[in-house]
Amino acid sequence: MAAVTIWNEFRHEREDDEVAAVYPDGMHETIADALSDHGHDGESDHDVRTATLDEPEHGLSEDVLERTDVLLWWGHEAHDEVSDAVAQRVQERVLEGMGLIVLHSGHYSKPFKRLMGTTCSLQYREDGAKERLWVVDPGHPIADGLEECIDLPRTEMYGEPFDVPEPDRLVFNSWFEGGEVFRSGCCYRRGSGRIFYFRPGHETYPIYENDDVRRVLRNAVDWATPTEGAPRTFGERD
Amino acid sequence: MAAVTIWNEFRHEREDDEVAAVYPDGMHETIADALSDHGHDGESDHDVRTATLDEPEHGLSEDVLERTDVLLWWGHEAHDEVSDAVAQRVQERVLEGMGLIVLHSGHYSKPFKRLMGTTCSLQYREDGAKERLWVVDPGHPIADGLEECIDLPRTEMYGEPFDVPEPDRLVFNSWFEGGEVFRSGCCYRRGSGRIFYFRPGHETYPIYENDDVRRVLRNAVDWATPTEGAPRTFGERD
Amino acid sequence: MAAVTIWNEFRHEREDDEVAAVYPDGMHETIADALSDHGHDGESDHDVRTATLDEPEHGLSEDVLERTDVLLWWGHEAHDEVSDAVAQRVQERVLEGMGLIVLHSGHYSKPFKRLMGTTCSLQYREDGAKERLWVVDPGHPIADGLEECIDLPRTEMYGEPFDVPEPDRLVFNSWFEGGEVFRSGCCYRRGSGRIFYFRPGHETYPIYENDDVRRVLRNAVDWATPTEGAPRTFGERD
Amino acid sequence: MAAVTIWNEFRHEREDDEVAAVYPDGMHETIADALSDHGHDGESDHDVRTATLDEPEHGLSEDVLERTDVLLWWGHEAHDEVSDAVAQRVQERVLEGMGLIVLHSGHYSKPFKRLMGTTCSLQYREDGAKERLWVVDPGHPIADGLEECIDLPRTEMYGEPFDVPEPDRLVFNSWFEGGEVFRSGCCYRRGSGRIFYFRPGHETYPIYENDDVRRVLRNAVDWATPTEGAPRTFGERD
Repeated sequence: MAAVTIWNEFRHEREDDEVAAVYPDGMHETIADALSDHGHDGESDHDVRTATLDEPEHGLSEDVLERTDVLLWWGHEAHDEVSDAVAQRVQERVLEGMGLIVLHSGHYSKPFKRLMGTTCSLQYREDGAKERLWVVDPGHPIADGLEECIDLPRTEMYGEPFDVPEPDRLVFNSWFEGGEVFRSGCCYRRGSGRIFYFRPGHETYPIYENDDVRRVLRNAVDWATPTEGAPRTFGERD
Repeated sequence: MAAVTIWNEFRHEREDDEVAAVYPDGMHETIADALSDHGHDGESDHDVRTATLDEPEHGLSEDVLERTDVLLWWGHEAHDEVSDAVAQRVQERVLEGMGLIVLHSGHYSKPFKRLMGTTCSLQYREDGAKERLWVVDPGHPIADGLEECIDLPRTEMYGEPFDVPEPDRLVFNSWFEGGEVFRSGCCYRRGSGRIFYFRPGHETYPIYENDDVRRVLRNAVDWATPTEGAPRTFGERD
Repeated sequence: MAAVTIWNEFRHEREDDEVAAVYPDGMHETIADALSDHGHDGESDHDVRTATLDEPEHGLSEDVLERTDVLLWWGHEAHDEVSDAVAQRVQERVLEGMGLIVLHSGHYSKPFKRLMGTTCSLQYREDGAKERLWVVDPGHPIADGLEECIDLPRTEMYGEPFDVPEPDRLVFNSWFEGGEVFRSGCCYRRGSGRIFYFRPGHETYPIYENDDVRRVLRNAVDWATPTEGAPRTFGERD
Repeated sequence: MAAVTIWNEFRHEREDDEVAAVYPDGMHETIADALSDHGHDGESDHDVRTATLDEPEHGLSEDVLERTDVLLWWGHEAHDEVSDAVAQRVQERVLEGMGLIVLHSGHYSKPFKRLMGTTCSLQYREDGAKERLWVVDPGHPIADGLEECIDLPRTEMYGEPFDVPEPDRLVFNSWFEGGEVFRSGCCYRRGSGRIFYFRPGHETYPIYENDDVRRVLRNAVDWATPTEGAPRTFGERD
């Protein structure tokens, strides 16, 4: 059982009726619910808490992060309002071992850009067309229990080039109805921390209600949970 | 200027009128012509020879391979007729530094399977539908001079999963009209040799007449040409 | 709990008194004992069987491999006596998901060379000098519970270059008293199978009695155990 | 011929007589001299300029960076005095394609840490003992023309763990007399830019006078020089 913190910007849901209709309690609550599903052998019950931008320290105090095994991150319109101090704190915790799952528009979040070292830019088109995520790495634990692909009938398009470091492991590769492709599930390790970027998710489509997407979220939490490890000893040596 | 050998199975062209109409002199001659194009600053003129399955030793004697910097490989219906001795000889030369460019159905060739260590299996559908190859790594020399994607109006589909080791570098990612994706340009190093798998190419579509595909072939030859290197010293050490 | 098969050539122990003194019941029994240690939270008790070269089908029938989650492999003087059929069977099972842990001189075994696609050559010197394995990836589960390095007072030296594909992940990097280095813990995935090459181990030094080495073996078995996965569907597609 | 800018902190040489004795004109001038050596087929003559910390904008104006193909970076005691604006400018230029060669204590420089996303920490001991750099990737162009290893009789030790992302390619692996190892030559790509971290170099040992080290610097400049590339198009797409 991992200690999971779900961070959500939580602005769209309070500002936009269309979004509120999809995620009335905020996207973080829907994701929290997904992590409690018993689809994964009943083993995926985690100790889940949530945190949002407008809480003090964005809900990510040192104490909260210290007690978090895996952090999920959804942000979009207010990336710049995340303080540099909190972004750095998240980065440092990942290097110490905390897992990080970055969702959808979180590709432009401060913690992800800091950890990747690149612009994390991409192409996009908000056309509500079809996406199909192909499992390109059927042996990866994040793909456990999936079929060969996941179909999402209506979504926003993200297209290549995606300016990130070559992933350690590519798990999903997306096809879009309009003619684009995108590396939709990218695994990285930085320091002792596991990072998974997962593309699906949007404020106006009910992506996090999709059973396969929810399964991926649970699998990703399991994968990103830190293990015991060996000492990270730095500095002057006798 | 690299010494390039283009290996072609050269059976379809002699057995099938439809294929002969597309490649009357054999696919190897069309590829040889592509490598002589002056599109790449006039610098891509290589010393090009060809070799085919039905020549003695399949045209790949030790002497020929010894003098080859980069070998291109197209095969399809007669993979099994390639002798194990020649397949092993190609593998060994790659490990010593010879570049290898594997084209289309060559994914199932003996040298490629030996070098990858996997089944190199995939999904396919011969539907003559559209393919779009996205450049996912715009900084890679194999993408030099391309636009953001290459459109091929009619081709055979290859779909994931593609059972190869995670590429060192993915250069192209294909979108197919029928709903599939495929990692279409995969870079590997094995020993001192550079290996590039490039998906486009089929016996009944004139893929190797496409200007962008021809440019990729020239770029790939430049990229795969061995450099001087350092000693590969093995065995007992004093 | 994983189903583990420990494969040992089991010739040195029967032919050489010096080796028999170190491993009186065969190296496989010592390794089996290591996997049953309760050092790893008491969770590492696996269903362990052994197999050796001189058994029918080298003890690796289709049925045995079908029921094996993780296979460990130690061989040295009789690599060539392993039949190609069994080597291919092991390779295929790895691609389907079986974990493979290759020990010491097993770098030259048929299954490992087939899966790597390279010569797997290296330099060596049998001098009985000191080795120190540094943990270069403290966040890797194979390093769980270790200190920053493992000291082995007397061992055979293996030196670079090690002709293997660039590892997906390097866990250990060895220092040798005589002036050499070696990438001693290399992780790969091929198909759905996890592969770990671990250098320590020799027939005349009691390496597999070392507590840290035993811990690595247990950690590696845990890491290499297959998960559920997604379908590996290949071939023609409608 | 590449346009090369050598950046040096240039403080030790002006503050410390011992350092001034080794590098009387500053380390940047010695490195500039190395890049002009005719050892590499006389082809390594680049258009070389230098820049130092105490120049306006640290000598790295937008115009200078715009005209730079490959930037070398040596810094040590004054990393914090490099302005964030210049560090960001260097990072952005690398993502656009500029090569970056980071030397020795430059592992802690702002541009390198920004591009890696990790702490870039390590262990060290200033003991003036022997280092041997093994070529672990003899087919890499940065190793062109070297022997199997480079011996440096007196140097500072750097030891693992080195908190950087797993290199795309490891070229050198160092052995230290005192019992440590270190990944001494690490290749990365970020965006369209090639990055090479090269460990050797210290202010009080004449490392950059070593012929093999000088050859590596020339090889690395050749390797890191950008090619033409394809468009990096980001943002909204029709």
